[in-house]
Amino acid sequence: MQKLKYGMVGGGQGAFIGAVHRKAAALDGQIELVAGALSSNPSRARASGEEIGLEDGRNYESWEAMLESEMKLPPDKRIDFVTIVTPNHVHYPVAKAFVQAGIHVVCDKPLVHTLEQASDLIRAAEANNVVFAVTYNYTGYPMVRQARDMVRAGMLGFIRKVIVEYNQGWLSTKLEDTQSKQADWRVDPARSGAAGAMGDIGSHAENLVSTITELEVSHLCADLTHFVEGRTLDDDANMLLRFKGGAKGVLIASQIQIGGENDLRIRVLGSKASLTWHQENPNYLIFDGLEGPRQILTRGSSYLSDSAKKATRLPTGHPEAFIEAFANVYLGAAEAIRASKEGHVLGPLEGDYPTIYDGARGVHFIHKTVESSKSDVKWLEASWAKSLRSEGVL
Amino acid sequence: MQKLKYGMVGGGQGAFIGAVHRKAAALDGQIELVAGALSSNPSRARASGEEIGLEDGRNYESWEAMLESEMKLPPDKRIDFVTIVTPNHVHYPVAKAFVQAGIHVVCDKPLVHTLEQASDLIRAAEANNVVFAVTYNYTGYPMVRQARDMVRAGMLGFIRKVIVEYNQGWLSTKLEDTQSKQADWRVDPARSGAAGAMGDIGSHAENLVSTITELEVSHLCADLTHFVEGRTLDDDANMLLRFKGGAKGVLIASQIQIGGENDLRIRVLGSKASLTWHQENPNYLIFDGLEGPRQILTRGSSYLSDSAKKATRLPTGHPEAFIEAFANVYLGAAEAIRASKEGHVLGPLEGDYPTIYDGARGVHFIHKTVESSKSDVKWLEASWAKSLRSEGVL
Amino acid sequence: MQKLKYGMVGGGQGAFIGAVHRKAAALDGQIELVAGALSSNPSRARASGEEIGLEDGRNYESWEAMLESEMKLPPDKRIDFVTIVTPNHVHYPVAKAFVQAGIHVVCDKPLVHTLEQASDLIRAAEANNVVFAVTYNYTGYPMVRQARDMVRAGMLGFIRKVIVEYNQGWLSTKLEDTQSKQADWRVDPARSGAAGAMGDIGSHAENLVSTITELEVSHLCADLTHFVEGRTLDDDANMLLRFKGGAKGVLIASQIQIGGENDLRIRVLGSKASLTWHQENPNYLIFDGLEGPRQILTRGSSYLSDSAKKATRLPTGHPEAFIEAFANVYLGAAEAIRASKEGHVLGPLEGDYPTIYDGARGVHFIHKTVESSKSDVKWLEASWAKSLRSEGVL
Amino acid sequence: MQKLKYGMVGGGQGAFIGAVHRKAAALDGQIELVAGALSSNPSRARASGEEIGLEDGRNYESWEAMLESEMKLPPDKRIDFVTIVTPNHVHYPVAKAFVQAGIHVVCDKPLVHTLEQASDLIRAAEANNVVFAVTYNYTGYPMVRQARDMVRAGMLGFIRKVIVEYNQGWLSTKLEDTQSKQADWRVDPARSGAAGAMGDIGSHAENLVSTITELEVSHLCADLTHFVEGRTLDDDANMLLRFKGGAKGVLIASQIQIGGENDLRIRVLGSKASLTWHQENPNYLIFDGLEGPRQILTRGSSYLSDSAKKATRLPTGHPEAFIEAFANVYLGAAEAIRASKEGHVLGPLEGDYPTIYDGARGVHFIHKTVESSKSDVKWLEASWAKSLRSEGVL
Repeated sequence: MQKLKYGMVGGGQGAFIGAVHRKAAALDGQIELVAGALSSNPSRARASGEEIGLEDGRNYESWEAMLESEMKLPPDKRIDFVTIVTPNHVHYPVAKAFVQAGIHVVCDKPLVHTLEQASDLIRAAEANNVVFAVTYNYTGYPMVRQARDMVRAGMLGFIRKVIVEYNQGWLSTKLEDTQSKQADWRVDPARSGAAGAMGDIGSHAENLVSTITELEVSHLCADLTHFVEGRTLDDDANMLLRFKGGAKGVLIASQIQIGGENDLRIRVLGSKASLTWHQENPNYLIFDGLEGPRQILTRGSSYLSDSAKKATRLPTGHPEAFIEAFANVYLGAAEAIRASKEGHVLGPLEGDYPTIYDGARGVHFIHKTVESSKSDVKWLEASWAKSLRSEGVL
Repeated sequence: MQKLKYGMVGGGQGAFIGAVHRKAAALDGQIELVAGALSSNPSRARASGEEIGLEDGRNYESWEAMLESEMKLPPDKRIDFVTIVTPNHVHYPVAKAFVQAGIHVVCDKPLVHTLEQASDLIRAAEANNVVFAVTYNYTGYPMVRQARDMVRAGMLGFIRKVIVEYNQGWLSTKLEDTQSKQADWRVDPARSGAAGAMGDIGSHAENLVSTITELEVSHLCADLTHFVEGRTLDDDANMLLRFKGGAKGVLIASQIQIGGENDLRIRVLGSKASLTWHQENPNYLIFDGLEGPRQILTRGSSYLSDSAKKATRLPTGHPEAFIEAFANVYLGAAEAIRASKEGHVLGPLEGDYPTIYDGARGVHFIHKTVESSKSDVKWLEASWAKSLRSEGVL
Repeated sequence: MQKLKYGMVGGGQGAFIGAVHRKAAALDGQIELVAGALSSNPSRARASGEEIGLEDGRNYESWEAMLESEMKLPPDKRIDFVTIVTPNHVHYPVAKAFVQAGIHVVCDKPLVHTLEQASDLIRAAEANNVVFAVTYNYTGYPMVRQARDMVRAGMLGFIRKVIVEYNQGWLSTKLEDTQSKQADWRVDPARSGAAGAMGDIGSHAENLVSTITELEVSHLCADLTHFVEGRTLDDDANMLLRFKGGAKGVLIASQIQIGGENDLRIRVLGSKASLTWHQENPNYLIFDGLEGPRQILTRGSSYLSDSAKKATRLPTGHPEAFIEAFANVYLGAAEAIRASKEGHVLGPLEGDYPTIYDGARGVHFIHKTVESSKSDVKWLEASWAKSLRSEGVL
Repeated sequence: MQKLKYGMVGGGQGAFIGAVHRKAAALDGQIELVAGALSSNPSRARASGEEIGLEDGRNYESWEAMLESEMKLPPDKRIDFVTIVTPNHVHYPVAKAFVQAGIHVVCDKPLVHTLEQASDLIRAAEANNVVFAVTYNYTGYPMVRQARDMVRAGMLGFIRKVIVEYNQGWLSTKLEDTQSKQADWRVDPARSGAAGAMGDIGSHAENLVSTITELEVSHLCADLTHFVEGRTLDDDANMLLRFKGGAKGVLIASQIQIGGENDLRIRVLGSKASLTWHQENPNYLIFDGLEGPRQILTRGSSYLSDSAKKATRLPTGHPEAFIEAFANVYLGAAEAIRASKEGHVLGPLEGDYPTIYDGARGVHFIHKTVESSKSDVKWLEASWAKSLRSEGVL
């Protein structure tokens, strides 16, 4: 199997998520980092590239330079895709440029700041026929796929209710005043976008619900708060959800829950059974049926769905975790990119990754929660399909 | 120590909670059951009383007969208090009559159907100087008291948010069609009151929040649902809360969460620390501070508060559970009743039990959630103090 | 149902286990404490009896006085049984005297100090036809009975291995030097017997294995240690076991595991399935079969065995715990005592309690572990049946 | 930073652990696979190499060919080290040859079959000055390093007892009759060595004890069993341990615990505190001190030791797992290899990996457990230092 080649934009010294992307991409020996423009600061970009062993000629000082130079290389030398791991506000211009050049994209979330930008990117991606993955990395966990497959197979019956939470505590105090690079941009509307906790982690929660249940939010009622004085963006969000078809939901996202580490968890309640999954203990999925004892499904077991098995590297009891899930998103995108390169049609289990449509829905959702929080209307209409259709993209 | 004597109204054959009250009252050897009118059906009342060994002369066919006969006994033979464990709609007339006779009351929750009834009972209890306990039994858990005491001591700082859930699954299907006595009356508005799940379990959740944080709800935004076709009362409730002083909250109560057994849990998030407690694993309290590792406090430990220690019978690792917590409510009420009999003033750790004011607040809360659920107003004013004041009782 | 009447020997002020017995006996309203000789010190005996509300005339200054007086009462006034909760070395004379008087006995464990005493008591109990229960209280947990019933039903196949642990930490330091009444007698061979941790808690572990698996130890290889300087009895014990029929085992008991509260746990490994149970989380039983996900059985469920259901008071999720399990031992003994009084034959689910034979086996086991620990022989023959037969009692 | 280059012997199609090594080595972008002799069958070796994208000229048909060809390359092109992941019986000749050629070695465990082979390899490694890592991968977990560092820092006081378990269930039935490649060689003495479960997983348990406590076993008393009929090697092992200095221990290893996935766990009991760690939930370490509540230390926290922090890639709550721990062993060996290449001295946190001495101690331990199991002597002398000294290597 030929390795795919990629370049990275962002992810230089001091960044967190760029290094995670590199590890995830490297893990399975199918994807190779060959180029980078790792910082918007040219000298830091160079230094960062040297540190991780980028070849001199492809250690670029800007993403524009990278795009230009790579396009001059023969196709079999050129990067197959670009990974964008800059602060949120830079996603849009970079993604747009690479898409227009016909280069596949893996972009961090939230996709962009506005729904207009998201719609524009969708149009561009469709026009240029590129694969565009958005790293809602939690969907890469095997037991998340198992949950989705069980819902699809009807094992839960009619879905009645979904409770999703994503709780962290690291912004419980005013960390942004302490030179924390991670905190600094996240609380800044210019770089982070319209929402704080909702954009950073609430959007993962939304995506997890959507991935597992494939339900669409119809209305929501949100209460966003910034508890730490001096902030303008929310550090805490609570909301009630209503889905098309009658399901109800609760979404809780907080960055001020002291003791919360990265506590993403979901419960899906159906008329026949319930499912519970917890990101901090990700190798297990709890199943409660109407009859009989609670069951603890474990990653690596023979009774799991094909897509859950495919997302697994190790036997049961040999835990897999965050990076492995992240790598599964890369493997899914890589399958789609290979298929695109070779002009073949994806098999039923191939190309399992979150797409630009997930990204756009996330942007829409973030904006609706902010709008709802400011509104006196109890139930804000929040169908993303309707919104995108009005943008002419669906 | 002289044992207190009590009579029971309700709790005959086929009832669940009456037997729990009897075990809780008996546990510590301080309280003795001497009389009963265990059913509204005279012959079932007699049979039920015989089954549990009531003395013939005090095995009454109706609560009216019990009240009349007991009042004729000399005070040292007469029951010291009555326990009311009938279906909800009977609480009010029975409680009123015994209160007016000057007999102390232990009444199951929810207290009554309407706020007017609650106010009326408060006035009567105050006028007759009786102890009136409402068995919000979960407040009897030692680690709930520990949580309250830690909040009181300021160990959490400013309370920012409270998340409380009470999830059960036993009404996931239409159990009321299967001759389940427990299900039958709970889904009937005439006997259960204005709400279903909210009245039965949501009111416990409200009480737990109030007990631990001593915060008062100012506004709420509720979404009540009956998922099982044919029901008129909610079997599921989700709501956002706002408290006086700025704290936010989420309350989830459901009787259609398959696999939910009696899953009452609470998280209290402060500016300095968080607390987590789970009723199904009640001997532990999780404490997360801004610094250092998570701590697991255990019942029976020397570092606990005086009231948590007082509510404890066994050393750590020898689990105590539901009945013991229930018995703590009885012990608290018994202390208050003894003090009342002896005319002495309660010590600082005495008389730790939920009162008629808790009961009234619960009734108010239930009604407000029903009102909110039907309303298009996002934030319904829900201050119970204001409501009770308008009833002239606060 | 007529209440049974009992008297208590031991369990006065400052004692721990006596109060537990009283609560356990009182819980279900079927058993009544009517007499006591609560201390070997006459004035403390009186004071203790007053404190718990014993009637003056039956608040005895010695067990001899109690026995004499009670025997003079007409049978329907007299105590039906005696509960013995003195330090270990007093069990034998008291039990012997009451048994010879034809009074049923509930005795704490370990039964007595020597196998000769145990054999003698067995002969006496058989001769006098009395019920003799030994409070191996952990066998009263519903999920322990469920485990036993699943083994009996063959659901585990051939039992290959048993791992049992009982870990505490309270003797990690020299507590006996700090006026701890509980620690003081336990580390004293004259009052505690031949072993320390083995007698106090290791014997519970042995009993749990025997109750659940009904296997008989054939050989053992023990290593007993006293880690805290100045002790003569073991505060830690580890051993390998061999059972008749080929199963293997490991038993670990420690009172110097800091952080160990009352950590009794057992795993039973069969050729078809495994079971895991943990006393500190007693409402659950983990079942692992050869196929399919792990199952978590919960107390109160409809799929449990009849004897597990019978030992249950509350629905699932309403936890029951230590005292309730203890009370189940009393209920079992009470059934046997009632049957004895009424001359009827016990039904298949009646009389489920640990007997004097369990007590004798425990004494034998304790002695064998002490012998093995001192020996260079790897596998010490430890069949209790053979030993008792040589005493002429089996 | 220049990437290290390595070749792999073994790990072809159908193998499990070879792929794990490749992922672990690739994860951090510091180590590159450039050569391989992936099977003892030449055509399968070629096919396996092609599958993972080995360059044609370095996709060797035998390890002898690989060694010969690589030695002809200039040092800066040549592999820096070889990873040996063949069945156990092949470790010795391959390791010997590469060591003698001065090539660093990463070898799977158990190191070799006999203590003589181990001693011979130690002598060769010392003579040729090569880095020789043995992949006791569980020592790579950050919380294992934290545990070791807490023991070293005296936070547990005097170590009194260690309980280690490694339980699996996959050999509960006769899997070797079902064409399982993994089961097949493990139950074959010719390929697996003197022990079954003890060699495969018991040796990990021994290594974990040794790594965390740095105690040396002085005597042991083992009971090895093969429960599944037709096996000659143990599928279950239980033993008592005695350490130099007075600590006691219990080691349990089983491959017939149905439901056991990869259940490696350890408890270390000291005079001041206890530690508990569980491989299936590896991001946490439980600390119990003499005073105060239980503490749950989590990977990624600021309060951890430097070596625990160094072994960490992600913030708390973003779980790391098996492959990441495995990669830490590679990173430690890589530091040592780089130091060796550059002639510099390792810093205090560098080169943290299990060495050939760990490997030799493991071989010695396996043999002693087998010897003890067959012996009537209760306490078999089992000091590995003494044994190695008698081999002239220590």
